[in-house]
Amino acid sequence: MQETRLDTARIRAARRLIDPMFLDTPLYRCEALEPHLGCALSVKLETANPVRSFKARGTEVVASRLADDGSQAVVCASAGNLGQALAWSGRGRGLDVTVVASRSATRAKLDRIRALGARLELVDGDHEPARQRAAAIARHDGIRLVEDSLDIETCEGAATIGLELVDTVPSFDAVLIALGGGALATGVGHVMKTLAPDVEVICVQPLGAPALTRSWRQRRVVTTGSTDTIADGVAGRYPIPAVLDDLLLVADDAVLVREASIIAGMRMLLDQAGLVVEPSAALGVAAILEDRERFAGRHVATIVCGSNVDMDAYRRWVGSPLHKP
Amino acid sequence: MQETRLDTARIRAARRLIDPMFLDTPLYRCEALEPHLGCALSVKLETANPVRSFKARGTEVVASRLADDGSQAVVCASAGNLGQALAWSGRGRGLDVTVVASRSATRAKLDRIRALGARLELVDGDHEPARQRAAAIARHDGIRLVEDSLDIETCEGAATIGLELVDTVPSFDAVLIALGGGALATGVGHVMKTLAPDVEVICVQPLGAPALTRSWRQRRVVTTGSTDTIADGVAGRYPIPAVLDDLLLVADDAVLVREASIIAGMRMLLDQAGLVVEPSAALGVAAILEDRERFAGRHVATIVCGSNVDMDAYRRWVGSPLHKP
Repeated sequence: MQETRLDTARIRAARRLIDPMFLDTPLYRCEALEPHLGCALSVKLETANPVRSFKARGTEVVASRLADDGSQAVVCASAGNLGQALAWSGRGRGLDVTVVASRSATRAKLDRIRALGARLELVDGDHEPARQRAAAIARHDGIRLVEDSLDIETCEGAATIGLELVDTVPSFDAVLIALGGGALATGVGHVMKTLAPDVEVICVQPLGAPALTRSWRQRRVVTTGSTDTIADGVAGRYPIPAVLDDLLLVADDAVLVREASIIAGMRMLLDQAGLVVEPSAALGVAAILEDRERFAGRHVATIVCGSNVDMDAYRRWVGSPLHKP
Repeated sequence: MQETRLDTARIRAARRLIDPMFLDTPLYRCEALEPHLGCALSVKLETANPVRSFKARGTEVVASRLADDGSQAVVCASAGNLGQALAWSGRGRGLDVTVVASRSATRAKLDRIRALGARLELVDGDHEPARQRAAAIARHDGIRLVEDSLDIETCEGAATIGLELVDTVPSFDAVLIALGGGALATGVGHVMKTLAPDVEVICVQPLGAPALTRSWRQRRVVTTGSTDTIADGVAGRYPIPAVLDDLLLVADDAVLVREASIIAGMRMLLDQAGLVVEPSAALGVAAILEDRERFAGRHVATIVCGSNVDMDAYRRWVGSPLHKP
C-alpha cells in the first residue's frame, strides 16, 4: 500500500493520550439480527461513553496535546458529535472550547455541547458555513481550529478503533464504516490495510449526501450543492482533498444507501439488538439490507459510531409496532 | 465483616474463566440524567454483549468448570436471562443445555434461548414451578442443576462486576443493585464491603416482588404467595436462606420501588442516555426517583444489568412523546 497520512506507530501512541473510558469498547456478535441480514454481524459499539459517539477518541488526542503545549482555547465546527466530544475533552483539561454549528443541527447534540460548558455559536445554513465561521474565529482569536478529518489527530483517534478490530479472533471478512468527512474511514481503513489487509473495507454514505463517495469513485473531489439525509453526522458537501487521497488508498469500496434503508437499519438495531443508534450508525446495516447477496454467509463488522438522536425524531423513525413496514 | 460464602481470591480466579467479551464493561457518568435525579450517576453497562445481561459472567464460570470435569449436560430454571446465558456458555463448550421457564416468561428471552440451541421446556405458573421442574430433570438425568444465587459460581460471576467497580477513580458514594435471587447483590456487595467498605450498598426490588427485601428487613426468610411486577428478572417468591445470610452481611439497605418509578426510570434511561433496559435494570434509577433527598449531591453508581425486553411491551412502557407523564 502507498503511504497515507497516517502512521500505525503514531496511532498506537495516540491511544495512550485517550481516556481509557473511550477505549476497548464492546465488540460482539449480534446473532438476533443475523437471520434478518443473511450474514454474521459483529458490532463495535462506540456509544457507551459520556459523549455517546466515537469522536472523543480524536478530541482526547487533540485536547491532550493542546494542554501539553499550554494552549488555553480551541474552536471547531461540528454537526454535533465532534463538538460534544471536544467540549468533554476540553473541559477536563481546562480549555475554553467554542463550537460552531448549524442552527438546524440535532437539538440533543447542541444541548449537550452547552451542558458540557462549551460556548456554542449557531449559524444559518448547513455544515459548510459553520466550518467557515469556525475558521474565522480561529484566525481572529489566534486559537487552534480543529478540522474534523483534515487534522491528523481526528483520524488517529478514530484509527484506534481499527487497532481494537484487528485484535479480534476470529477475524471478520469485511468492515462497514460510516463515511462522512472521512476520519473514521481513513483511520480505521489505514489500520485494516496495514494489519489485516484481507478484510474488505467498505465505506457507506447516504444517497442524500454522496460527495465523498462520488469523489472516491471519480478519483477527484466532487462537491454537491446540498444534502438531504437524516444522517446529520455524515452530511458534508466539500470533501477534503488530502482525505480523499487517503481514502483512495484504504477503501475497497464506497456505497450509497437510501434513507428508508437507514431507518430500517435503526429499527432493526433497536428491535433485535436493543441498541439506540443515530442514523449515521445504521449505515452499515443499511448497506447489508440493500445488497444481501454481496454479504451472504460472510462475517461482517460494523462500527456503531454514535447514538445522539432527538428522541422525538427517533420515535418517529423507529415507530410503534403499528407503524412497522 | 463476618464471612459470606464468597471469597475475593476465588472471585479473582473466576474472572479468568469468563470470556473477556463479558468483562470490563463500560462504566461512565450519564450527566444528561443528573439534572433529573439531583445526583451524579454512573452506569455500569452489562447489556453490550451477546446475551444482553450480566448473567453470562456466572454461566461462563459454571460451564467452564463443567467442561473441565467432562460433564456433557446441564439444566437450569430461568426467567430468561440465566437460561440465555447458560445456553450461550454451554454451546461454546459442547454442553447440552436444558432451560425450564414459565410459559409467561418474556418471549424475547425464550426465543433467544431456543436460537442458542438449548432445549427449552415451558411450565405453567411462575418461576417457582420452573425451579421444581428443573430440579426433577437434574435428578432424573443425573446432570448438574444450576441454581441461580444458591450456586456459588453464579454469585462469583456477578461479583466480578464488583472488582471492576472498586477500580473506579474517583470512587462513588453508593451503589444501587437490582435484587432478585440475590447473586448480583451478594456478589457485588461482598466485593464492595471487602475492598471499598465506605460505599453504601443499596439493594432495590419492586414492591410487587418484595420477598427478599422483606426477608432482609426481618432477618428471616419471608415468602410471598404471588408477584406482581413487570420486572420479570427479579420476581422470585422463595428467598434462599444461605443467600439471605450473605445479604444480611453485605447490604446496607434494601428498598422497594413502585412500578411507575421503574417505568419512569426506563424512560429516562432511554431519553437521556440512549439506553434500552429491561425493567430490572431500571430499579436503581427508580430508587433515586423515589428518594431524591437521600441521594442529593452524592455520586451514585447503578448496574444496568440487562436489556432483554419484548419490544411491544417496551414501546408501551417508554411510550411516545404524547404519552409522557
